Amino acid sequence: MYSKLLSMQKYLDYLEQNKEAFLNELKEFLKIPSISADHNYKPQIMQAANFLQDQLKKLGFTTIELLETEDHPLVFGEYVVDSAKPTVLLYSHYDVQPPDPLAEWQTPPFEPEIRNQAIYARGAADNKAPLFCHLKAVETLLKTKGLPLNVKFIFDGGEEIGSEGLVSLLKQNPEKFKADLALISDTSMILDDLPSLAISLRGLVYLEVIINGPNRDLYSGQNGGLVQNPINALATMVAKITDDSGKITIPGFYDQVLDLTEAELKELATIPFDLTEYKNKLGVSELTSDSKIEILKRLWVKPTFDCNGIKGGYLGEGQKTIIPSQASAKLSFRIVPNQNPQQIKSLVEAYLHQIKPAGVTLKIIEHSGCFPVKIDHTSKQVQLALKVLTEVYGHNPFLQGVGESIPLVLEFNQTLGMPCLLLGFGKWSDNIHSPNENFKLDNFYKGILTLCRFLEIYK
Amino acid sequence: MYSKLLSMQKYLDYLEQNKEAFLNELKEFLKIPSISADHNYKPQIMQAANFLQDQLKKLGFTTIELLETEDHPLVFGEYVVDSAKPTVLLYSHYDVQPPDPLAEWQTPPFEPEIRNQAIYARGAADNKAPLFCHLKAVETLLKTKGLPLNVKFIFDGGEEIGSEGLVSLLKQNPEKFKADLALISDTSMILDDLPSLAISLRGLVYLEVIINGPNRDLYSGQNGGLVQNPINALATMVAKITDDSGKITIPGFYDQVLDLTEAELKELATIPFDLTEYKNKLGVSELTSDSKIEILKRLWVKPTFDCNGIKGGYLGEGQKTIIPSQASAKLSFRIVPNQNPQQIKSLVEAYLHQIKPAGVTLKIIEHSGCFPVKIDHTSKQVQLALKVLTEVYGHNPFLQGVGESIPLVLEFNQTLGMPCLLLGFGKWSDNIHSPNENFKLDNFYKGILTLCRFLEIYK
Repeated sequence: MYSKLLSMQKYLDYLEQNKEAFLNELKEFLKIPSISADHNYKPQIMQAANFLQDQLKKLGFTTIELLETEDHPLVFGEYVVDSAKPTVLLYSHYDVQPPDPLAEWQTPPFEPEIRNQAIYARGAADNKAPLFCHLKAVETLLKTKGLPLNVKFIFDGGEEIGSEGLVSLLKQNPEKFKADLALISDTSMILDDLPSLAISLRGLVYLEVIINGPNRDLYSGQNGGLVQNPINALATMVAKITDDSGKITIPGFYDQVLDLTEAELKELATIPFDLTEYKNKLGVSELTSDSKIEILKRLWVKPTFDCNGIKGGYLGEGQKTIIPSQASAKLSFRIVPNQNPQQIKSLVEAYLHQIKPAGVTLKIIEHSGCFPVKIDHTSKQVQLALKVLTEVYGHNPFLQGVGESIPLVLEFNQTLGMPCLLLGFGKWSDNIHSPNENFKLDNFYKGILTLCRFLEIYK
Repeated sequence: MYSKLLSMQKYLDYLEQNKEAFLNELKEFLKIPSISADHNYKPQIMQAANFLQDQLKKLGFTTIELLETEDHPLVFGEYVVDSAKPTVLLYSHYDVQPPDPLAEWQTPPFEPEIRNQAIYARGAADNKAPLFCHLKAVETLLKTKGLPLNVKFIFDGGEEIGSEGLVSLLKQNPEKFKADLALISDTSMILDDLPSLAISLRGLVYLEVIINGPNRDLYSGQNGGLVQNPINALATMVAKITDDSGKITIPGFYDQVLDLTEAELKELATIPFDLTEYKNKLGVSELTSDSKIEILKRLWVKPTFDCNGIKGGYLGEGQKTIIPSQASAKLSFRIVPNQNPQQIKSLVEAYLHQIKPAGVTLKIIEHSGCFPVKIDHTSKQVQLALKVLTEVYGHNPFLQGVGESIPLVLEFNQTLGMPCLLLGFGKWSDNIHSPNENFKLDNFYKGILTLCRFLEIYK
């Protein structure tokens, strides 16, 4: 198929010659356990940052900087071809999620292995192989037709812990990072065998709820039935957030939710997403709906509520008859255009206070709030990306939503006034944040090709 | 007051002379961390068992045995005065609950300290000081008027882990332990300043519920809204076990519950239990009812449901956006006369299966089941005990229920055909199973006196 794409022949030739070398370099990069959530891995974070600086040096970048933040450093690079030409900011991150549970990995997370035409390692899809697509696309352009526009690189070292270091830097010095377009390859395509392009992101409201009851753990034999049990209270409150169908029952919660347009709904219906395959993969007997359209809406454009963690009382083996003093839960709401995280947080808080049973106290901690994002699919960059994906993948891409949140997109939009293109090459089956994370080799090469071609025609 | 009780003068004199010695011996006993739940404390369990054998030797017991069980050993002793006389079995236990949370103890749990006219240590009330009342009452009788009947001692080493070792021995060799009456001092009086006698115990059904969803933890950004979240499912199920008033909603649950008779209700109403003091002590703003009668009913003769532990998902600091593969909870039901633990367990299990949301699986583990107990308050032993308590405390005792469960009572009744007398000397404020456990010194001496006098007139 590649050979039919004459306009890309030079890229293809270079790629063919360097395919093994690229893969070997990626393997070296994947061996570095650059886990940002655990400060014991600070040296490995630095090792990964140095690795990337060396990559930029080899490409002849004149500006290469290690920018310290309150968390982990980020690597910034700039290559100016002609200041009259447009500039594209290529954003990716080199930090990874912790690999546990380790026992569930088929091969060790930091010993990359190729099998089933994919590379398996923690960080393979999120986000080291896509980062490599950025790097190697720029290399391919430089070594073939020349770089058609100016590029800036951001290799973030703290994406998995919220990118707060980068956000501070953006606010302090927006000009440094400003470009005509920010290109982010940190989303996944929904189908394994066909291309898609992301045009929306869900936002997030993440709260922790702490219920306090009696001033110490009590013996349930002597006090059961007399005092409100904090776990019973918490369970009741969590249960009251949704009805039996999973719909959130908080008054006003859905008021700002945008319905899909008829055109969007039509587009959605064309996506050949296989519910049975998905169910089998996750080992569940039923999904929350039997309708493909409903499932895709729930994934992308409907808000959801998940309790991500809960604890209270006796957690060991066997039995202990206590009424615990405290119980707590982590509650997250994925929100959708046009919901506002601050408004949603207020609604949730008011509701929780309203449904709290008597005899216990309620404390709410906010962990994060992030706006949802909707990308204008009629924009130049989206239309060009669709064209290039069609050329490279040989199939018209689907327009898809993304269920997760990328706080940076809004920062790029608002702080830097920069549009974003979410041009991800991962697939939904890549197991990001899970054991056996992987990235398909075919998508690695197609990603490089797509980026070469996009940068060429965006100029 | 003691001096008025001429019939007890000899006991009082002996007690007065030996009061310090008794207390010092009790302190030595309390220093031994005989924690049965933790096998690392096996040597300390043995140390406590040896301590008790030495005590029996000093009293001149001819039968003193260390009986091994599948858990911890128990100490058995027998003193036959005259085989024509009745025999009383004095049951107590020398094992203690784990002391954690350690930080909440005012003084270390295994360094007994006297303050506020009470002795503070883990195991003080549950059950080492009451055990000492048994021992020292027999000593006092032997050293004064002579032992008026035959006694058997059981010092159980595994009560806090269910007494299964003892139960096996009872079934293997019932004759060895048989007596005319089993006297158990392992209950607490509800009021700090007035006496009461226990005439009922609640039973227990303790289950663990495990909900499994997807075959691994999922990223909620990519899967939220599509799959049933095991924590959400579990919270909903826990919430559906009761209505907002705390009443259990499981069909048929209350069918066998005995109502109080008018006389019992009248008796209950006389107990001067102070709700405000209780609330203040526990640091809660509200109880489940404002009515004293309702509260006492809920404590003793109404079934309750408590979730004693719950866990699932991310339990660390900050946020992690996962849908966990599993969530679990410990659920306990205190049951009352005439509920049957097996029947209740079946009702609960059927209900849980019925309310389980689609898309997750449910596994139920039974940790224990125990019958409730009702004691005939017109029996000879209860009437005699009431008389003695009146003499010793100078006030008619109240008849009270007990919210907790003592599985052995039913074993003594059924396996050995032996009635039980629940003659506890602890107070509800003794903090058993909690930090700062204590036993009031006054109750220690009154306990010894009560037992001397009871054994004297029971003969």
